[in-house]
Amino acid sequence: MARWQSGSRERLAASALRLFASQGFEGTTVAEIAAEAGLTERTFFRYYTDKPEVLFAGQGEFEALFLDGPETSTSTSPMELVASALDGAAAYFPDERRSWSRSRQVVVTGNVALHDRELHKMSALADALTAALVKRDVDPTAAALAAEAGVSVFRRAFAAWIAEGETRPFVDIQRGVLHQLQALLGSR
Amino acid sequence: MARWQSGSRERLAASALRLFASQGFEGTTVAEIAAEAGLTERTFFRYYTDKPEVLFAGQGEFEALFLDGPETSTSTSPMELVASALDGAAAYFPDERRSWSRSRQVVVTGNVALHDRELHKMSALADALTAALVKRDVDPTAAALAAEAGVSVFRRAFAAWIAEGETRPFVDIQRGVLHQLQALLGSR
Repeated sequence: MARWQSGSRERLAASALRLFASQGFEGTTVAEIAAEAGLTERTFFRYYTDKPEVLFAGQGEFEALFLDGPETSTSTSPMELVASALDGAAAYFPDERRSWSRSRQVVVTGNVALHDRELHKMSALADALTAALVKRDVDPTAAALAAEAGVSVFRRAFAAWIAEGETRPFVDIQRGVLHQLQALLGSR
Repeated sequence: MARWQSGSRERLAASALRLFASQGFEGTTVAEIAAEAGLTERTFFRYYTDKPEVLFAGQGEFEALFLDGPETSTSTSPMELVASALDGAAAYFPDERRSWSRSRQVVVTGNVALHDRELHKMSALADALTAALVKRDVDPTAAALAAEAGVSVFRRAFAAWIAEGETRPFVDIQRGVLHQLQALLGSR
């Protein structure tokens, strides 16, 4: 992940984010993004199908990391399978990515359509994790509850990880949030 | 709630749902809905601002029921406050509403835009519950986790309640799902 900031793809992503932050997502064209990166529009479309894709690329890789644990773990406990999914997802967020993720989040939450797409993505992730758990013989309702709890923990961990001044690694924050949820639900 | 099937508003809703089911949401016009209900288009717009509104009306009333418990309960335990929200929400789903909710769900899940609107609604509900818990001095991360767990329980309970052949009252199903989540999270 040390090379994450290099390459045309990454330069385009960084340029896009700079422009979205300074002049808004709607107010930025693909031509401007390419120019800012010192590349052509044609090169942009070699890497991304459209402008929003800059913010949502990598979804397949992220989902693969998220589902690897539940699919390969030897455990049969729903929450251990979910914990393995969360640890896998944490690998997608090394410290080098934190400042990019922080800027991306400002853009996504500031635009209704992007925010809805993010909600849709999280809902699809919970559905995929539910399916993975059902394949591991977890009862469907328990699978859905455990998967949604997992995605909820992921989202809280992500919000904490990108908070100003936060320096702990993603994986540690996320394990803490999972324990917090377990403590909350265990105590009535 | 015995009068729920009477009145122009309810007749329009029932007619809309019949038409959405038989000819699709997109393929149905407001004029057809009004005609099916034996009313005018003008009457339709007295009750609903637009066609999707037929499926999403009552959101304010539902949210009020959901938030009443957490705002007025004397408990300070986050999960007891969430449990009170869930019991309040159950009042919105008397048995007379079950078949309408069942048909509505088929329409909503069959249309991407409506499904996204439903996701958005659930996300807004979790945000509102989070805010209500924070007002009750719950730590913000704990509030968000507890609120999202609550909305997750609500969604599972709703799915079970509208399942073919299910006859148990909403409130009983929902309490069972909450206990199932607590057992899941309590046992690692």
